[in-house]
Amino acid sequence: MQIIADNIQITNPMIAQALNEMNPLPVQDLAKKCEAADADIIDINPGPLTRDGEEKMTFLVEAVQQVCNLPLSLDTSNPSAMAAGLKACRERPIINGFSLETAKIEKILPLATEFECDITGFLLYPNGMVPGNDEERLNLAVQLFEAFNEKRIEPQRLIIDPVLVPLMWEDGSRQAMELLTVIRMLQDLLGFPVKTIVGLSNLTSGKGPKEKKLLLEEVYLSMLASAGLDMVLMNIFNKKTVSAAKACDSITRQGTFSWEEVP
Amino acid sequence: MQIIADNIQITNPMIAQALNEMNPLPVQDLAKKCEAADADIIDINPGPLTRDGEEKMTFLVEAVQQVCNLPLSLDTSNPSAMAAGLKACRERPIINGFSLETAKIEKILPLATEFECDITGFLLYPNGMVPGNDEERLNLAVQLFEAFNEKRIEPQRLIIDPVLVPLMWEDGSRQAMELLTVIRMLQDLLGFPVKTIVGLSNLTSGKGPKEKKLLLEEVYLSMLASAGLDMVLMNIFNKKTVSAAKACDSITRQGTFSWEEVP
Repeated sequence: MQIIADNIQITNPMIAQALNEMNPLPVQDLAKKCEAADADIIDINPGPLTRDGEEKMTFLVEAVQQVCNLPLSLDTSNPSAMAAGLKACRERPIINGFSLETAKIEKILPLATEFECDITGFLLYPNGMVPGNDEERLNLAVQLFEAFNEKRIEPQRLIIDPVLVPLMWEDGSRQAMELLTVIRMLQDLLGFPVKTIVGLSNLTSGKGPKEKKLLLEEVYLSMLASAGLDMVLMNIFNKKTVSAAKACDSITRQGTFSWEEVP
Repeated sequence: MQIIADNIQITNPMIAQALNEMNPLPVQDLAKKCEAADADIIDINPGPLTRDGEEKMTFLVEAVQQVCNLPLSLDTSNPSAMAAGLKACRERPIINGFSLETAKIEKILPLATEFECDITGFLLYPNGMVPGNDEERLNLAVQLFEAFNEKRIEPQRLIIDPVLVPLMWEDGSRQAMELLTVIRMLQDLLGFPVKTIVGLSNLTSGKGPKEKKLLLEEVYLSMLASAGLDMVLMNIFNKKTVSAAKACDSITRQGTFSWEEVP
């Protein structure tokens, strides 16, 4: 499983300030820490970037690339900022991402062809509503796949995010379990080994004791791993969750088990 | 998921000595510790009991029952010792267990009817060989079920143990993953919600660093939980594994999530 660090995001006040001042140092410091903490990919999420989007996304991509060789995942709903960021990437990045919302189908999705990138597709309704059960999710997956076909994008570029909802929601546990079914069924449904990603922090978003949140993250990530999850977007500084991901790899990976691979 | 403590076993030298001297105190001390550590059931495994089997099994059951109210699981291949132990139980115990071995089908399995107990059935060949893949395991499950039918035992008494093999075996990781498939498929295969159990210590038996073993136990138990495992036989003093089991319950359980249920 590949681990994508979600740490460089606008909700971090330090990153918001650095972006405001166009000061690369705090961003670079964080990027170096993400790499040291064993991230495989770094997600850059500056939010919707309503002003100076192109300039700001380019600044962030360049800042990170100056200190770190990891591939990037770019996360903004602003299409021109996304395009500028993609253009600035040295390694092939991931576009994070699109959904059935018309603006995203028309403006974000075509960037996957233009820049030859993989792109995350969220199982959300066009109005942004979260599906209520596994049947609805599988239905949305088929629609994402059809949008890919219409735009003549190679299906192998699709990474599906089934959209984890918080356990604290009224039906959160049920949805968490159904998500595992969705991940297991996608390959049969779409007829090829479609890649999957989950944003793990959603599981415990809201109030709750930190230690309990970490334990839940760890056990649920193990469940996701056994369902065949390919990528997880998470706080890379949650060391125990990173260790759990690597321990899962040593079991789910084909081939001979090795103690060396267990952290 | 119910947790069955596997701590009272003859491979523990303290238990071997206590059984030899018929001294209840060390057994009782351990039983109390298992209960305090949050076991749901206590397994008593005195080995094959080649001498004074009936007397010894009765002694162990009575010793534990004097200090602890938890239900028991009795684990011996000696049928008369098993019968004596079952007779001494105040609460309905689990018989642990039988396989397709003729002696077990003829001598152990009928005790499930006589004592109205649930009984663990191991997915092993009659000669004790471990099956090599999920297809072989599902085949053996059908044969256990047929043995149940022949002896006219209610199928709800069957608890299937798919027999976990060590990760260190050449194909250990593959078998660990296939076990999850077997657990998920049993209900459809046999046509009723058959209960399942796994002996977790098998996963990491053999040499290896303790901390890594515990992490592997924890993540693999989470995978088992998501596959629908009903019971786990484990070292109840592995606190983090117990916590992981309870955190899994808070996700896999139907109903509203509650922080109270997360340890």
